[in-house]
Amino acid sequence: MAAELFAALLHHPVLDRHGRVVTAAVTSLDVHDLARSARTYGVTATFVVHPTAQQRAFARRLIGHWLDGPGRDFDGRRREALLRVEVLATLAEARAAVKKQCGVDPTLVFTSARERRPAVGYDDLRRRLQASDARPALLLFGTGFGLAPALVAEADLVLAPLCGIDDYNHLSVRAASAVILDRLRGH
Amino acid sequence: MAAELFAALLHHPVLDRHGRVVTAAVTSLDVHDLARSARTYGVTATFVVHPTAQQRAFARRLIGHWLDGPGRDFDGRRREALLRVEVLATLAEARAAVKKQCGVDPTLVFTSARERRPAVGYDDLRRRLQASDARPALLLFGTGFGLAPALVAEADLVLAPLCGIDDYNHLSVRAASAVILDRLRGH
Repeated sequence: MAAELFAALLHHPVLDRHGRVVTAAVTSLDVHDLARSARTYGVTATFVVHPTAQQRAFARRLIGHWLDGPGRDFDGRRREALLRVEVLATLAEARAAVKKQCGVDPTLVFTSARERRPAVGYDDLRRRLQASDARPALLLFGTGFGLAPALVAEADLVLAPLCGIDDYNHLSVRAASAVILDRLRGH
Repeated sequence: MAAELFAALLHHPVLDRHGRVVTAAVTSLDVHDLARSARTYGVTATFVVHPTAQQRAFARRLIGHWLDGPGRDFDGRRREALLRVEVLATLAEARAAVKKQCGVDPTLVFTSARERRPAVGYDDLRRRLQASDARPALLLFGTGFGLAPALVAEADLVLAPLCGIDDYNHLSVRAASAVILDRLRGH
């Protein structure tokens, strides 16, 4: 048995384009795309994390549209993906949810497009997650212009940035999260 | 020198959720995400292909916002990505654009989440693209519920579907295109 994988889409603390720490708004397609990628790559649960009650209500409403509302019969695969999404207020709640489900604290994995040392590579993390005694892992994805550096202190591992052909690696969180999951769990 | 890579985001002929052949509307984030992924992974040009003049005008307007409009100074990296996007009416125009630029017809690569035989695998296509005498490749991405099967007849290669952990592989085109580019060009 490989380690269980969890994902958190964080809206705070994230950076804006000037590098300031801000709270980003919920983007509907972020939730949909991450839920579908997560389901595809076997993520146990995805946490949409937002500190503002109104934004959490918005996230729950858009998910509810597909679970129990008019979207229910539109596309069953979308529903199947969104069934594994939980809306929470803080990263601490996400961590607690994993602990409650798995009985052990998850390894928190910080992701970013910016180079930080020391970082764990994709093959290395993939192997670690395949170990039979591996703790569950909680992948942290940042909206806005990425996770605030302060979160590194809370994380157990920093994942290396995705590299394309040069130093331009400005992927959307929808794209980057899919690529990261593919590198960790794809076949 | 590896082969030059091109991408086409097709809105017709694509499938709807019932498997009917339809024309899909342009989705703003599809254009943004694919442009950013394409720039990250060294795609020479991305073609947004739509048969309807109004939809092409919409696509050009949203791109123009970032090239010359208010978005220009908001985020230079987004502009850099969108500078490599062209809006065209047909796949034939996209193919002609590659031929004009490279002097040779591109290898057309059909992508789909559905299994089709014979299909080329990712490692195989990656190696082929690295050959010094390789023709340019034009990757075809479908909006809606994916490219219509009729396009297989026009393609030179069918790329194997992306696989996660089971038979659920319902990725958004934003996510799937990023994963495919990463598998073909990522490091």
